[in-house]
Amino acid sequence: MNEESFDAGEQIVSPAYIRQGREARRSHEQLIRVLLEKGKCPQDAWGEGTIELFLRELAVMDSNNFLGNCGVGEREGRVASGMVSRRHYRLIHGIGRSGDISAVQPKAAGSSLLNKLTNSMVLDILRTAGVRTATSCFVVPMATGMSLTLCFLTLRHKRPKAKYILWPRIDQKSCFKSMITAGFEPVVIENVLEGDELRTDLKAVESRISELGAENILCIHSTTSCFAPRVPDRLEELAEICAKHDIPHIVNNAYGVQSSKCMHLIQQGARRGRIDAFVQSLDKNFMVPVGGAVVAGFNDSFLEEISKMYPGRASASPSLDVLITLLSLGASGYKNLLTERKELFTYLANELKALAAKHNERLLDTPHNPISLGLCHLEHHSQSADMFLRASCLTAMTILALT
Amino acid sequence: MNEESFDAGEQIVSPAYIRQGREARRSHEQLIRVLLEKGKCPQDAWGEGTIELFLRELAVMDSNNFLGNCGVGEREGRVASGMVSRRHYRLIHGIGRSGDISAVQPKAAGSSLLNKLTNSMVLDILRTAGVRTATSCFVVPMATGMSLTLCFLTLRHKRPKAKYILWPRIDQKSCFKSMITAGFEPVVIENVLEGDELRTDLKAVESRISELGAENILCIHSTTSCFAPRVPDRLEELAEICAKHDIPHIVNNAYGVQSSKCMHLIQQGARRGRIDAFVQSLDKNFMVPVGGAVVAGFNDSFLEEISKMYPGRASASPSLDVLITLLSLGASGYKNLLTERKELFTYLANELKALAAKHNERLLDTPHNPISLGLCHLEHHSQSADMFLRASCLTAMTILALT
Amino acid sequence: MNEESFDAGEQIVSPAYIRQGREARRSHEQLIRVLLEKGKCPQDAWGEGTIELFLRELAVMDSNNFLGNCGVGEREGRVASGMVSRRHYRLIHGIGRSGDISAVQPKAAGSSLLNKLTNSMVLDILRTAGVRTATSCFVVPMATGMSLTLCFLTLRHKRPKAKYILWPRIDQKSCFKSMITAGFEPVVIENVLEGDELRTDLKAVESRISELGAENILCIHSTTSCFAPRVPDRLEELAEICAKHDIPHIVNNAYGVQSSKCMHLIQQGARRGRIDAFVQSLDKNFMVPVGGAVVAGFNDSFLEEISKMYPGRASASPSLDVLITLLSLGASGYKNLLTERKELFTYLANELKALAAKHNERLLDTPHNPISLGLCHLEHHSQSADMFLRASCLTAMTILALT
Amino acid sequence: MNEESFDAGEQIVSPAYIRQGREARRSHEQLIRVLLEKGKCPQDAWGEGTIELFLRELAVMDSNNFLGNCGVGEREGRVASGMVSRRHYRLIHGIGRSGDISAVQPKAAGSSLLNKLTNSMVLDILRTAGVRTATSCFVVPMATGMSLTLCFLTLRHKRPKAKYILWPRIDQKSCFKSMITAGFEPVVIENVLEGDELRTDLKAVESRISELGAENILCIHSTTSCFAPRVPDRLEELAEICAKHDIPHIVNNAYGVQSSKCMHLIQQGARRGRIDAFVQSLDKNFMVPVGGAVVAGFNDSFLEEISKMYPGRASASPSLDVLITLLSLGASGYKNLLTERKELFTYLANELKALAAKHNERLLDTPHNPISLGLCHLEHHSQSADMFLRASCLTAMTILALT
Repeated sequence: MNEESFDAGEQIVSPAYIRQGREARRSHEQLIRVLLEKGKCPQDAWGEGTIELFLRELAVMDSNNFLGNCGVGEREGRVASGMVSRRHYRLIHGIGRSGDISAVQPKAAGSSLLNKLTNSMVLDILRTAGVRTATSCFVVPMATGMSLTLCFLTLRHKRPKAKYILWPRIDQKSCFKSMITAGFEPVVIENVLEGDELRTDLKAVESRISELGAENILCIHSTTSCFAPRVPDRLEELAEICAKHDIPHIVNNAYGVQSSKCMHLIQQGARRGRIDAFVQSLDKNFMVPVGGAVVAGFNDSFLEEISKMYPGRASASPSLDVLITLLSLGASGYKNLLTERKELFTYLANELKALAAKHNERLLDTPHNPISLGLCHLEHHSQSADMFLRASCLTAMTILALT
Repeated sequence: MNEESFDAGEQIVSPAYIRQGREARRSHEQLIRVLLEKGKCPQDAWGEGTIELFLRELAVMDSNNFLGNCGVGEREGRVASGMVSRRHYRLIHGIGRSGDISAVQPKAAGSSLLNKLTNSMVLDILRTAGVRTATSCFVVPMATGMSLTLCFLTLRHKRPKAKYILWPRIDQKSCFKSMITAGFEPVVIENVLEGDELRTDLKAVESRISELGAENILCIHSTTSCFAPRVPDRLEELAEICAKHDIPHIVNNAYGVQSSKCMHLIQQGARRGRIDAFVQSLDKNFMVPVGGAVVAGFNDSFLEEISKMYPGRASASPSLDVLITLLSLGASGYKNLLTERKELFTYLANELKALAAKHNERLLDTPHNPISLGLCHLEHHSQSADMFLRASCLTAMTILALT
Repeated sequence: MNEESFDAGEQIVSPAYIRQGREARRSHEQLIRVLLEKGKCPQDAWGEGTIELFLRELAVMDSNNFLGNCGVGEREGRVASGMVSRRHYRLIHGIGRSGDISAVQPKAAGSSLLNKLTNSMVLDILRTAGVRTATSCFVVPMATGMSLTLCFLTLRHKRPKAKYILWPRIDQKSCFKSMITAGFEPVVIENVLEGDELRTDLKAVESRISELGAENILCIHSTTSCFAPRVPDRLEELAEICAKHDIPHIVNNAYGVQSSKCMHLIQQGARRGRIDAFVQSLDKNFMVPVGGAVVAGFNDSFLEEISKMYPGRASASPSLDVLITLLSLGASGYKNLLTERKELFTYLANELKALAAKHNERLLDTPHNPISLGLCHLEHHSQSADMFLRASCLTAMTILALT
Repeated sequence: MNEESFDAGEQIVSPAYIRQGREARRSHEQLIRVLLEKGKCPQDAWGEGTIELFLRELAVMDSNNFLGNCGVGEREGRVASGMVSRRHYRLIHGIGRSGDISAVQPKAAGSSLLNKLTNSMVLDILRTAGVRTATSCFVVPMATGMSLTLCFLTLRHKRPKAKYILWPRIDQKSCFKSMITAGFEPVVIENVLEGDELRTDLKAVESRISELGAENILCIHSTTSCFAPRVPDRLEELAEICAKHDIPHIVNNAYGVQSSKCMHLIQQGARRGRIDAFVQSLDKNFMVPVGGAVVAGFNDSFLEEISKMYPGRASASPSLDVLITLLSLGASGYKNLLTERKELFTYLANELKALAAKHNERLLDTPHNPISLGLCHLEHHSQSADMFLRASCLTAMTILALT
């Protein structure tokens, strides 16, 4: 309602009450204004009423909601089902343009704002969570694996000769496929057993580089979040190796935003060596439905190149979910979840240790892994790393109690 | 979003696009402004997006949605369930104050606007539908019968000696109960058979008045909408009798707004004689869920007296339903429904006539009843009115195809 | 989905997974079954998913949602606006029939179940909250005051000679109006000051009864919940007086369900004397939107008489709100709110006492009032009760922190 | 509600009414059963009530909605915001597994059914719309361009030597980028002017094949839907060339499902020659929000290979939108839209022709383009094809009035 509407309202209901209502409206507007001006996740949670008001405001700015609009093009945001329209808050145009997934759309100022703001708020959260020098990021409506593929495809244009990706082994199918799909040959670096932990074999990395030739290597593809007994890769050292040999470095940080240790590794890696991009899952770190990822980095122009590789406009659904979620939690609510998860993890580790003792099992001692625990039969203890891995996988319990 | 928010938006997304969005917002605001200024049902239907935007705007003006509000009173609009809150668009305070169901509430400027606007729009519709000189009306969250009771209870204070209500017979339970509940003695006036139609016995009315004494009669309680073979009461003549004897006149117009004939009768009655109030059902005339009625009349102060009889604040739910419905239809949409119903009624009458002929039945000839039709076995034709009524009731088909 | 659908599902998705889903469905069904069998508020809260599932199930049982249905009557549950339909979960038929607000409707098995279940669950809560011997109750979509009016109108038929209602004074407009609207003459019994408290003057009640004659008195209209310095009426003694003189007794328990003391008074009154009905507000005790009340009592046939006085079908909206709210809280959640409120009240009393001392004020000593506190200037202390009342009203703070 | 619940309901409400409700429920269940058994888009539209009921049923089968479930893994479908949960109907797990976007998920039987059913219904529509011999398809939550990229990446593994994609020129950025992103070199085949139309230069295609060598060509990338004066590619001839030289053939059918001509071309191409996959946009053909595509083909195993290339689980949002949309339209509703679009197109062409005549313009004669029209200044008529193209592009009007 604008000033004239409020004036008209004063003719119907006592002016004093309307004035109070107008004041109240201003306090909601104030929250929206600050969000738009700062582009940061608000410290305190917004109520659902304010979030809905904001989404309505965005929606009326999109051309499919223009009153009296009658388009005949193929990109008019027509929706056949009211149910579908409502569940998207009438934001139909998606994000990006054919040229760039981060670009604004002429027909959809509201959706464009949504896209830009979400990316900006997520960057704020990534920094708060530990990667303080990250300079840009964008949400993509694709799985982490497919987003990694997009990073590799972008690098191909910069390193036309490269065929190989160096990859410290991690037993998750989609990580492996992300390279295969992009058309590269993964060079698997087996991990080494240190105590109970499986850790990056830096020497093997160095020797494969000299063997294959740095210019034939597209990038090193490292991982932070993983299942015990594997622990996060030695990111700092890998980043230094990348810097030394001028090899790009892409980090799979799939469910690492929730862990200050994983984020710290990325921060340190970027500070001491080279990290071109780090990719994280939306659902696992932001508690939204499956299907989105965040590509982040320290170099705006490289991030822009990646965002320009996505051919076509994309679904705004994951961005909308993240926007709503961050507004409904607030930065403080998000931080509380991080703290709570860390406490629950310690609690669970202690309880599991006690439980294991009763069943002739043993909780693996994997202090470098902040998000997963493994149990092992005592008799397997003396076996080789490979056997060990398989045995522990059978009984592994992932503990990402981010709830 | 206010001007500052739009300015901030221009820093994020191209100013040209934001300007377009701002323009688009203005066109929604324009609709809202005109509604508030005129207080009339808009000619053209509003889209759901605009309606929702408007309801959000109303809600933020209610104190339960004030940011940072912390009330300790018993009337704070606290709601335990989010589902409940959402389905009422966060409008929780109901309508009216303990003193008056039409009064504004200090804590709820938005709900108060909702209440006033709905009443104003419904009055507009009642006038459009044929009662052009109606001066005020209000929605009550009570059945038609209970609303009639409220009218009778109001009249009691003006006619403390009166014990009787004169009531041309209509076989609907709630009409009868409305008088009993109010504590009065219904004096039933049997109808007379004219052709196939059962019509008001005006002579019987006059004779009962002289018999009982006008001052002992609370009011005449007449009816427009009814099932064939009964037809609407002779409202003009009844209104003249009321004027002559200074007896109040309350009209049960339960499902009569949909029929121009019923509305015309009320208009003519008020012009030529006396009608104190006419009451109609919300669900039957406005296609909303069961549970509300509209009390309308030609005398603001009497209507105000009725509205001041309701002890307590009342549910806003029926008002909200009517508001949404009228905005989503627009005056033109409502009028189209009226026209369509009339056409369907004629169509159905013709088809029924043909059908009846095949089954040794006969469609009753009840031209004065614009909303109901009756079938009758041919052999019953020669029998008395009383038998006739019962026979026809068994096969009566009501045709209020207001869809 | 029925068995055949699950079987078909097994052809599409692995049977093992479908079986798990089928099991999961059964656990929701189990909750619904127990609710229907016991008719009690479930101990544990239901999730929104289960509540919605249940409401959909109810809705499909109403004739307006029958597939292929084509009604031409005036009671078909037609709704013009999809927004309206959705916010009522497609339950359109309201509750009750023209004859009885508690009756089931032939066209609406789902709405009828909703109505019956809600009443049954509310009775369960009233008992749990302290009135253990209450035998029946029903929700009405009317304010507490209007519901009291309905009780008085019902009594009129049983006591045709009665003109007066004895009413220990309480300064709330709608209480007074509830009697005026019903057409009775309130006989105000001034309270007496005992310490800081204003309490029922039992002698005055007795003397007015002998003065006016018991048969001329419709009922005693007492009150539990009130603002300090008034305290709840001496219900036990009033109930005994009513029993002795065979005078009905209607209790205004507007916001008393939340207080074990108020409920205890009613229980004791019913045990030692006579209470015909007690009426409470829905919004104040069940945290739903304004507009409903619960009429409860100890005598099924009298309660039935009241429910049969409502002429017409009524809005199901308040019943739906209560149903959703109780399911989403569970009995345990509701009890937690009661406990929390009591604790907060004590906390607030202590804090106010300390605050008052600093400002030359005094917290009134009103131990019999469990829901309201009053402050008073020290110098007013020696003045008359009347002055005192007014002074304290100015600074009274109601503390119904049921949140 | 199961049988026991209905039995319990009969104790509360009249058994006859409950039986009726139970019957009504069965008719909804019947619709669901047939859908699951046939896997086809139902002929008649479903009401919103049935669709919501079905989605609730699917949701309760997913593990995140299991009552009493307490998962500690990283894939538990946890959602922080109720708003987000509700807008996805509590279907949180996305679609597919890390290995395959079409695979079922152990933790999400409901989401898996959703995925399979949607693909099955879309295939039904594609066949109905004209590609009668299509054997499989799947929805991907990616833009058409990105989906084409996925097809090219899949072909890379089958044709490791291939570097080139033959591409009859079409001036849309994302088509071009789809090849670049996949890392291939587009070989642009300029179109030839025939009358007003720009058509595929088949000779040029043949000569580039012999020049480059068939084994070095990844595929021919042809287009159906395009802006006038370009017309759909000569798909039959291209498909024959592909068959002859054993070159894969990927068709960009971005907005072609709506046009029987485009669909007929694909059907004929597949019958007479070779088409490996054809890709279409969801929003343009199914009137859902931007962000999804359908990859379809005639060879199940190739389609499976593509679906296995997507690394990770994917957003179910586009699939859910299509499912809701197709159920709410029904096959007959969808077909009506197709017919209406065709009629509107003819109408618009005629009106534009008349309008053009008044302004010294001319409607281009492009009978092979069923979805776009172009205007041209008369004086440009005699100029070269290249000039012509640019001039007409400036004034081109796309007419995809699928509304």
